[in-house]
Amino acid sequence: MHQLTIIKIGGKIVEDPESLIAFLKDFALIAGDKILVHGGGSSANRLAEKLGIQTRMVDGRRITDEDTLKVVTMVYAGLVNKNIVAKLQALKVDAIGLTGADMNLILSAKRPVTTIDYGFVGDVKEINASVLSDLLRQGYIPVLAPLTHDGNGLLLNTNADTIAGEIAKVMAFDFNVRLIYCFEKKGVLSDENDENSVIQNLDNALFQQYREEGIIKEGMIPKLENAFQAKTCGVKEVIITQASDINTGKGTFIK
Amino acid sequence: MHQLTIIKIGGKIVEDPESLIAFLKDFALIAGDKILVHGGGSSANRLAEKLGIQTRMVDGRRITDEDTLKVVTMVYAGLVNKNIVAKLQALKVDAIGLTGADMNLILSAKRPVTTIDYGFVGDVKEINASVLSDLLRQGYIPVLAPLTHDGNGLLLNTNADTIAGEIAKVMAFDFNVRLIYCFEKKGVLSDENDENSVIQNLDNALFQQYREEGIIKEGMIPKLENAFQAKTCGVKEVIITQASDINTGKGTFIK
Repeated sequence: MHQLTIIKIGGKIVEDPESLIAFLKDFALIAGDKILVHGGGSSANRLAEKLGIQTRMVDGRRITDEDTLKVVTMVYAGLVNKNIVAKLQALKVDAIGLTGADMNLILSAKRPVTTIDYGFVGDVKEINASVLSDLLRQGYIPVLAPLTHDGNGLLLNTNADTIAGEIAKVMAFDFNVRLIYCFEKKGVLSDENDENSVIQNLDNALFQQYREEGIIKEGMIPKLENAFQAKTCGVKEVIITQASDINTGKGTFIK
Repeated sequence: MHQLTIIKIGGKIVEDPESLIAFLKDFALIAGDKILVHGGGSSANRLAEKLGIQTRMVDGRRITDEDTLKVVTMVYAGLVNKNIVAKLQALKVDAIGLTGADMNLILSAKRPVTTIDYGFVGDVKEINASVLSDLLRQGYIPVLAPLTHDGNGLLLNTNADTIAGEIAKVMAFDFNVRLIYCFEKKGVLSDENDENSVIQNLDNALFQQYREEGIIKEGMIPKLENAFQAKTCGVKEVIITQASDINTGKGTFIK
């Protein structure tokens, strides 16, 4: 089976032009097929603020009302996605920027209202793996913005970690998939005050223990849940690391 | 040769949800291969205004400074493009939204500074016709936002009429191309105060005469220059009409 590397980068790296270009150069060096999934959080917050739209977050998830959906569509699918694509083209990576609506790539369902109404947020229902495989076979590198569609004309804001994890799972049928979640730290830390306390190998028992002890908490929990689920579903390697370490083999390996 | 319809729609229609959906329904009905090129003018102006960015136009062309480039990237490639794609998907049209940077589709050169510095505006250098042909052969409908790239990492704002015309010309080698420019009027008028004075057939001699007489003026001139150039370069049919007439055969036919 072909090797496929799926990398998820967060909002912070795409905002700093120097870190972004350094990351994209490293990304360009990865051999074999690859897919990039990006977020774009704080740029969206800043634009919303300038436009007088209030940003509301619950458990690290954005409440997406109609105005916020417009903002994230502009920032994620427009500004962030197309700048990454143009910069990859300059590095001779034949990138194609897509949302889940393009080529009917990712179908989602608007999250049901429970105690919280997340608004225009989509939970992934179906990923069109053959479209991605075809693009890769033709030499294109998909760059995915965290937006999906409901098939009825609605764009939906969708968590980028989840998109990366779900894509990894469906692609695992046809590829040896390596899924790398990049964030600001060198990996999952056993001591949040010690940057060098990276947990090299994290299995589910240790995750549950650290979670109970409060060592792993907040936004890290859904990220790791995505990571373990991907590993359980046939993804060969799942790694949590910082963007500058995608080619060094450093970080936390999910076991 | 296969039939290919290329339609260009302007900013006004994409802003009014009802007109847009009516147009997209008509677009979905067009048989054979098709490509949609859209503008997005006044939405960009409104966002720029809200953000306190001044919109400067010279001869109907936008001066694109760094902030304006960000605005048009957000509005054209994000908001407008992805909403059209999601709505076409709901109509079972397998749309793919692209800028000229995606798949290295349209390479442009930053317009040289003469008496006017247009800023981040690109003049089309090369269109990757085989990429478009491949997408069409695979059943995808390209939806193009008016942004191109210079191959060195820079996105450039590019006139949508020009993009539509240039694509029509390169696709004319392999397709019977019909190019339809949609705008707010029923066609080119011989009397601007009479909506029914549509010139049915317009040849270059008549165009030059009307231009000298001041009957055809302003933004219509570059539009018609693109239209005549396309006709001269092998495009079978070039039509100027309103969006609601794309399937009725009404409008001005360029001869």
